[in-house]
Amino acid sequence: MNDTFLKACRGEEVDYTPVWLMRQAGRYMKEYQEVRSKVDFLTLCKTPELATKVTLQPVDILNVDAAILFSDILIPVEAMGMHLEFSDKKGPILGDPVRSKSGVDRLVIPDTEDSMPFVLEAIRMLRQELAGKVPLIGFSGAPYTLATYIIEGGSSRNFAHTKKMMYQNPGLFAGLLEKITATIIEYLSAQIRAGAQAVQLFDSWAGNLAPYDYENVIFPYVKTTIKALKKYEVPVIYFANDCAGILKVVKKCGADVIGIDWRVDMHKAVKKIGKKASIQGNLDPCVLFAPHEHIDERVQDVLNRAEGARGHIFNLGHGILPETPVENAIAMVEAVHRLSRK
Amino acid sequence: MNDTFLKACRGEEVDYTPVWLMRQAGRYMKEYQEVRSKVDFLTLCKTPELATKVTLQPVDILNVDAAILFSDILIPVEAMGMHLEFSDKKGPILGDPVRSKSGVDRLVIPDTEDSMPFVLEAIRMLRQELAGKVPLIGFSGAPYTLATYIIEGGSSRNFAHTKKMMYQNPGLFAGLLEKITATIIEYLSAQIRAGAQAVQLFDSWAGNLAPYDYENVIFPYVKTTIKALKKYEVPVIYFANDCAGILKVVKKCGADVIGIDWRVDMHKAVKKIGKKASIQGNLDPCVLFAPHEHIDERVQDVLNRAEGARGHIFNLGHGILPETPVENAIAMVEAVHRLSRK
Repeated sequence: MNDTFLKACRGEEVDYTPVWLMRQAGRYMKEYQEVRSKVDFLTLCKTPELATKVTLQPVDILNVDAAILFSDILIPVEAMGMHLEFSDKKGPILGDPVRSKSGVDRLVIPDTEDSMPFVLEAIRMLRQELAGKVPLIGFSGAPYTLATYIIEGGSSRNFAHTKKMMYQNPGLFAGLLEKITATIIEYLSAQIRAGAQAVQLFDSWAGNLAPYDYENVIFPYVKTTIKALKKYEVPVIYFANDCAGILKVVKKCGADVIGIDWRVDMHKAVKKIGKKASIQGNLDPCVLFAPHEHIDERVQDVLNRAEGARGHIFNLGHGILPETPVENAIAMVEAVHRLSRK
Repeated sequence: MNDTFLKACRGEEVDYTPVWLMRQAGRYMKEYQEVRSKVDFLTLCKTPELATKVTLQPVDILNVDAAILFSDILIPVEAMGMHLEFSDKKGPILGDPVRSKSGVDRLVIPDTEDSMPFVLEAIRMLRQELAGKVPLIGFSGAPYTLATYIIEGGSSRNFAHTKKMMYQNPGLFAGLLEKITATIIEYLSAQIRAGAQAVQLFDSWAGNLAPYDYENVIFPYVKTTIKALKKYEVPVIYFANDCAGILKVVKKCGADVIGIDWRVDMHKAVKKIGKKASIQGNLDPCVLFAPHEHIDERVQDVLNRAEGARGHIFNLGHGILPETPVENAIAMVEAVHRLSRK
């Protein structure tokens, strides 16, 4: 049983720095593409056998210290009542974006067992298949990030519709955030009860907010979510992308682990966070295009800068890119293990 | 003669906080759209009478304290030898992206007077038309930002090609950056000689770099550029977008003014920069969708947080968005003047 990841989450002593990669199951791997060539993306997410299969691929191929459930952050948004599809060109498209009271009223707080049983089934299968080899991480999008998709109807550049609602109709915006927060708490609780040994909240778009808005409007929902999950006593990881400007707020979120993106100096992040939480990150995913010697150098640099952290889980600062050569991801994981071993 | 902007750039005492808006001439204004409806975007940039006309529009309509030349950061890239066009959907497209030695060799360091005379002509016209009403700002893209367009062939999400070259072929990458830096120095020098009273370097994509790469690979070219412009004794503004994670490096760039985006807490930025430079920014452009009372509140907040700065030039933290109501931009400028007056 490799519990290095869980120990590092809790700030306990470890023999080496554990590592996993955001989006470690995915397009850059031919084994994944083989599975994906036969089914569309949403079917893959919703078929427990297939989700289990692709979740396990990187565990064996990369030798990472944790598995993360293969799924998509928009699965619970679909369950809230929105029509979801994935376009190869445009990414996710949510029908009928929510920008009015009737839109917010229409959304439900779904019961995971009823409306997303495939997620829980995949978790149960994975725990059985993994048989303690490495821990399994469950996940969800964070409140603001899910709100942006619900309001914009997909990806966005400036989040103008989201911020318009936030500024022009703060009451409606709060109502939406409350519904989303309740959904996330129920969703992650169900994942933990099904067997997830840690959960990560992805706040992919939080970093686009002014610190003023993040702190005053959004952060309370982050704290509420994390607080509600505390009773399960599994580590909670909060990853806010592009967090350099809001880290001073983020660090108070109550999570066991703070994930940071690649645009932050790990050393400064460790100093800011102190012993309140462990830290996860933060190699630029593009460094995996570099020659192996440079990957080594950059892994060493991140390890050096993480000195003094309560605990450190090595990761990329964002999801691995589809064009990444698998052998470079393998080399990175190997370098983390080799260079961090005491 | 309103020289409040220039005084604030130099850290001299002012009666109120001067303000201008990045992209203050543009699509959100019907007077601009009227001009633009008759010519394509590049023709507008290359016709001094028209560029002058749209540059002047916001000076009168918004009552800002500086004019900024209407142009595009890719004008000198076209002059370096690349084919440039603007697609309404995809934004700028540069033909035959540079990813090899022959590509870099093909680029020239253009003489501004020969290959971009329209820029200098517009500046001369503008100085005459402005007649000292407000100062005129010239500008250029910064070395890394121009490099990303040259290597990617347009806008990018991950800058994978750029970073691939940076990691896989650092010699070639340095050669390209040197050519771009020489181009920018010549281009901005010519703008200053033609009459630009301040210049801004836009590093729109610097914030996507890991601090490691920004500091070690990119920052030397920023410093070289700024140093070369010092002799003209006009204020140099360096705006690195998404700079929260690299501000500790950025502050050493030697510019008279550091521009910061909206994701940075202005108070922390002022503390970091100290008395080395004045500061410019940093309202979230989306705040201009808010009711006037909230705009007032947010203007006041930025003014409060800028206390202690050597000098403060109020601005948005990024370009004004096309959907912005003009009356809200006017209200913001008015609020800055009213709330900052001593």
